[in-house]
Amino acid sequence: MTHTVDTTNSDSGRREDDAVQADAIESELDASARIAKRPGSASGTGLSGGSDARRASTNDVVVARTDVEWLGRYLLGTWADVRLGARELTARPELQRIDGQSFEEHRARVSGQLKLLVEDGQVHRAFPSAVGGADDHGGNIAGFEELVLADPSLQIKSGVQWGLFGAAVLHLGTEYHHTTFLPAIMNLDVPGAFAMTETGHGSDVAAIGTTATYDEATGEFVLHTPFRGAWKDYLGNAAVDGLAAVLFAQLITKNVNHGVHAFYVPIRDAATGEFLPGIGGEDDGLKGGLNGIDNGRLHFDQVRIPRLNLLNRYGDVAEDGTYSSPIGSPGRRFFTMLGTLVQGRVSLDGASVAAAKVALTIAITYGNERRQFTAGSDTDEEVLLDYQLHQKRLIPKLATTYAASFAHEQLLTKFDEVFSGRADSDDDRQDLETLAAALKPLSTWHALDTLQEAREACGGAGFLAENRLVGLRADLDVYATFEGDNHVLLQLVAKRLLSDYGRRFAKADFGVLARYVVEQAADRAVHGSGLRSLGQRVADFGSTARSVGQLREASAQRQLLTDRVETMVGEVAAKLRPAAKASQKDAADLFNLHQSEIIEAARAHAELLQWEAFTEALEGTAGVTSGMDDGTRVVLTWLRDLFGLGLVEKHLAWYLMNGRLSPKRAQAVGLYTERLSARIRPHAQDLVRAFGYGPEHVRASIATGAERERQTQARDYYRAARAAGTLPVPEKKPARPR
Amino acid sequence: MTHTVDTTNSDSGRREDDAVQADAIESELDASARIAKRPGSASGTGLSGGSDARRASTNDVVVARTDVEWLGRYLLGTWADVRLGARELTARPELQRIDGQSFEEHRARVSGQLKLLVEDGQVHRAFPSAVGGADDHGGNIAGFEELVLADPSLQIKSGVQWGLFGAAVLHLGTEYHHTTFLPAIMNLDVPGAFAMTETGHGSDVAAIGTTATYDEATGEFVLHTPFRGAWKDYLGNAAVDGLAAVLFAQLITKNVNHGVHAFYVPIRDAATGEFLPGIGGEDDGLKGGLNGIDNGRLHFDQVRIPRLNLLNRYGDVAEDGTYSSPIGSPGRRFFTMLGTLVQGRVSLDGASVAAAKVALTIAITYGNERRQFTAGSDTDEEVLLDYQLHQKRLIPKLATTYAASFAHEQLLTKFDEVFSGRADSDDDRQDLETLAAALKPLSTWHALDTLQEAREACGGAGFLAENRLVGLRADLDVYATFEGDNHVLLQLVAKRLLSDYGRRFAKADFGVLARYVVEQAADRAVHGSGLRSLGQRVADFGSTARSVGQLREASAQRQLLTDRVETMVGEVAAKLRPAAKASQKDAADLFNLHQSEIIEAARAHAELLQWEAFTEALEGTAGVTSGMDDGTRVVLTWLRDLFGLGLVEKHLAWYLMNGRLSPKRAQAVGLYTERLSARIRPHAQDLVRAFGYGPEHVRASIATGAERERQTQARDYYRAARAAGTLPVPEKKPARPR
Repeated sequence: MTHTVDTTNSDSGRREDDAVQADAIESELDASARIAKRPGSASGTGLSGGSDARRASTNDVVVARTDVEWLGRYLLGTWADVRLGARELTARPELQRIDGQSFEEHRARVSGQLKLLVEDGQVHRAFPSAVGGADDHGGNIAGFEELVLADPSLQIKSGVQWGLFGAAVLHLGTEYHHTTFLPAIMNLDVPGAFAMTETGHGSDVAAIGTTATYDEATGEFVLHTPFRGAWKDYLGNAAVDGLAAVLFAQLITKNVNHGVHAFYVPIRDAATGEFLPGIGGEDDGLKGGLNGIDNGRLHFDQVRIPRLNLLNRYGDVAEDGTYSSPIGSPGRRFFTMLGTLVQGRVSLDGASVAAAKVALTIAITYGNERRQFTAGSDTDEEVLLDYQLHQKRLIPKLATTYAASFAHEQLLTKFDEVFSGRADSDDDRQDLETLAAALKPLSTWHALDTLQEAREACGGAGFLAENRLVGLRADLDVYATFEGDNHVLLQLVAKRLLSDYGRRFAKADFGVLARYVVEQAADRAVHGSGLRSLGQRVADFGSTARSVGQLREASAQRQLLTDRVETMVGEVAAKLRPAAKASQKDAADLFNLHQSEIIEAARAHAELLQWEAFTEALEGTAGVTSGMDDGTRVVLTWLRDLFGLGLVEKHLAWYLMNGRLSPKRAQAVGLYTERLSARIRPHAQDLVRAFGYGPEHVRASIATGAERERQTQARDYYRAARAAGTLPVPEKKPARPR
Repeated sequence: MTHTVDTTNSDSGRREDDAVQADAIESELDASARIAKRPGSASGTGLSGGSDARRASTNDVVVARTDVEWLGRYLLGTWADVRLGARELTARPELQRIDGQSFEEHRARVSGQLKLLVEDGQVHRAFPSAVGGADDHGGNIAGFEELVLADPSLQIKSGVQWGLFGAAVLHLGTEYHHTTFLPAIMNLDVPGAFAMTETGHGSDVAAIGTTATYDEATGEFVLHTPFRGAWKDYLGNAAVDGLAAVLFAQLITKNVNHGVHAFYVPIRDAATGEFLPGIGGEDDGLKGGLNGIDNGRLHFDQVRIPRLNLLNRYGDVAEDGTYSSPIGSPGRRFFTMLGTLVQGRVSLDGASVAAAKVALTIAITYGNERRQFTAGSDTDEEVLLDYQLHQKRLIPKLATTYAASFAHEQLLTKFDEVFSGRADSDDDRQDLETLAAALKPLSTWHALDTLQEAREACGGAGFLAENRLVGLRADLDVYATFEGDNHVLLQLVAKRLLSDYGRRFAKADFGVLARYVVEQAADRAVHGSGLRSLGQRVADFGSTARSVGQLREASAQRQLLTDRVETMVGEVAAKLRPAAKASQKDAADLFNLHQSEIIEAARAHAELLQWEAFTEALEGTAGVTSGMDDGTRVVLTWLRDLFGLGLVEKHLAWYLMNGRLSPKRAQAVGLYTERLSARIRPHAQDLVRAFGYGPEHVRASIATGAERERQTQARDYYRAARAAGTLPVPEKKPARPR
């Protein structure tokens, strides 16, 4: 396999201390880049379908190519059939978004589409077989994610109904609730809201103001909204469709507040659609996107519900008002309850990856067809993707999308293991929650960045609704702040990293430990989501990766990325150490003084997890990559290297400030990622084809081949006119900007 | 004045070579930061109206404060009265956007609003007094920019009518066209399209396919669209309202193509609204934003117009078909014609600054009122803007907005000088165009980034249309690619930088010159937009700024920023040198191989121009800052330093790789910008108040004080319950994520 790894520029014999000349490196890189530069140009279309860039390695010749069919299947992952089934669903026009509808029309359409999903039945996968489901948690999410391509409003509205409202009844309720409420939730007889967030409290769920006070006299809970900030807000299904809600409120009995619990509450009269007595609400109105969902507000004025409507899996109140819970610690109980709802984050991670895939399919297809400015010729304009800048704008995003896709597959697998009960320990659950909290921020932001870059890369055409980029971006915008604000999630990850760190070095001195040799724990490090460990002394690193060539080795990339996480966590831990002995106020101030660093460490960790997932997908475990041919491996290795070294480049200042890279080597990183983009460029079209989205999913007029037809027509026109001698003579060759 | 410059941490006695300990620097910074940390907290609201942070300098005590009224007036700039007048206009509800309208309704509303603008008369300012205008170019743009706050669709639609369609007739036409066409354009009897862009050609205007062939036999031009890619596209007023267009086409006479010229062309029958014979079109339909504008496509099938409809200021055709032009070079002629339309870029720069100001007004007001998570207290939640991360997300954007605002004022002044004829040399025009090409990309991207960060910083509330951030972002999205794609504009800037560089060092060796001492030319450097010059040897820099303290000096920031531009331009110039002797193809390949660097150099140059503008606004020239009190100067100096050092931080890897900053000093840069954000934090509310936008302009429900009321109500509720002993006892203090 070694011959497939790109060793063209191997200079591993060089010493770190040598003044490695950036110029020399650059010309080396140039030379090798040229080899792979424009293999597809002979085809004349700029399209690289079946492209095969010949490249030389030191010992062998491997034809870099992309086996689109194999790769496409590989990307579909464990739940390939479910995904393909869901894609058939999203290809049905009646499930697709119609641009330009009023939000009332759009809401009505999506409500109707939900009924089609019920008929289809796929959305019931996660529910217990006892009530007609399939107990298939991973498959359920895999299918759900694909719905984003029909209409993100459809996806999220179905997520509200079955993934939040229904899932809360399932996971927080018990037998009684399952048999009483689930059937009507599943068949949509009772559309419902997930009433957690309040106007005054989003991310800090523990501090919500709504109360549910047990009245021993009547055996009822009294639900109450004590002030305006405690109105439930931004709830899908609340403005129009919801007949019931799962309401989160502070459970109070015998004058003790037992913290946030969930209650099943009817909110509207099914016959009239009017709010039930004591309940009121407001429509959130038009939003930046997702306007097919009727988000709204709810408030409660001493509303009474039966005691049994408490979803009592993790906390119950007896008739006499006695509280009991299988989990003694209120904090742990709270996080356990919230943890059952992790699937929202898991599915947003996957949906964001799907959206990024479609965005790149559109922009790369267009970039491969659209021509602008003549550069090396008097007559032929260049294809956009042949411009270095265009490559730099899109191809690293392609690499990140692959990384995010493979990382998501791991997250979904972990999710399925936990929720199926196959691996359901406390540690497993914590790992799952941390992994979801790490990946969801990166993928949702990546989707927005990718959609925006794609939109700008397509110019005015990208701004038209018919080309989908603006609509998807508008809808996905809120993914960055719902189901956990991205920054708050990263802070949760950081907390976990710090506590892992603390556990390991409980009795040692932090300053020393930051650079200490810790045991290699690759399996746990990759599969778990806790603190990554370094296999070698950090101090060794300088001599481990001596050259540009070695930066391309997975082990060097891993070390650079892991070292950064480890060092940052160690440094922050040391800085936060005084907090242990400080007053609450001083500890909070200290934490706040390092908040940015803390979050940056979590982000670095999440990036590393993506890189590990990509590397594992590339290296294969247990034979899953069997069938990957050498050419495909070359291309995917370039892509993984671009992702890994792109991360190093992004954080180059850190590596320089901390003495991990010399200035000369640092310069080489940037030059090399640029060359990698150029090498991958001929394979870009194949790499988006492997995402497997057909015209029925992409539905962007600029990605249908229309632009290629227009370009061909224009060139034919000029060619014919030149041949016939009818083309007017230019007064003089006009100067053109380029 | 020296005592007003922040010298708290001055350590200028230190040697560069000393191992300046980052930790030591950090604790110094911490200490001083604490002084200014929460001066307004006594008010209990987190609002810093009239805040005065006491701070100690080595020799004196200056009370950092913000004179909101003075600063507000200063920001209004030269055309203060025009801006205030335009703001009165934008405060009128009938000119404001109504969210949620269908695009047909929105178009109709904006069309109606244009008539109100005619009645108001302000939009006629730029036209000649001979036809009822005021010959006031700067004022016209200043007023136009403010319209963005009523509705960006209104702004851009009026820009299409008077700033593009009308301005093309004005600047490219002559007396005949002015008297014949302008009156009906000004009073909106003839709404018109600016038909330049084609489906197949956006940025490369010189390559458009539409032809205007002179027919000597009839004395007419024959307008023709030879293929689908040559359809005019994305034209405002083309889909519905346009009765005429200024059409850009290749002027062909006697079988010679004289390049792109503009023609006045009636396109619809005013009575029926139908296209005239030979003309067809399509509606561009729904877009990502600006849906109050009827963008569409036009195509022409052998359409005949009178010879006199050629807008003939820069090129004319006599009755016998003889072409003549006052500008011999077709290239220069082309760029001269396009140059007359620079006002589009100027005004987008200003409108983007206005949008960023409103975005920050919303997010900072909300961040100062919204509370989330208890940190240092059991009961009181923290105001969002007291979190370090929240400061880091918003306050540097505040600094950039000030920089962009001051830079825009310089651009507008330059524009007014050129268009009024007061300073209208070729050099002046080139400087203006380069300055516009440099600033427009930065400000339009900054507006998008700021709107997005503001939207995310406001959480779910930020996603509601009623809080305006999503709507403004959607509308401004296209500002990044229209009136010149941002990347293409930066490439134009780079071209200018390279040619300036080449001119200066025509006969010298580039390698040496890249570090050569060049003459200081501050005035030209600041006011012109060509290549900035360094006043000192680059090699001296290391010893010039020896310490963190000195990084805060304007001279040190200027050197760091200027050095980077100069070095990058010199390096790229050296790399491109072989192109002079290469074939067209090889030269193009070489250019392409360095395209990213080239654009990065232009971006660095544009950032420097913003920094210079901020610094000049701070230092004042010709007494314009008279009235700035010392306290305000302290705050603005912090803000300028945050902007300048923020740029250094953004490009830290470059400074490290190129040996301009030591690793230790580089670490101090990041720590110091963090501390600057904390120092500015108490003044943030005043700094957005100085933007001068009232509730009638901001129109975001979360920025009306509603959130503060909700927070007060909630706290009062808990306080009263605690006092009365009715608050239920917590089971145990719940664990909360922070």
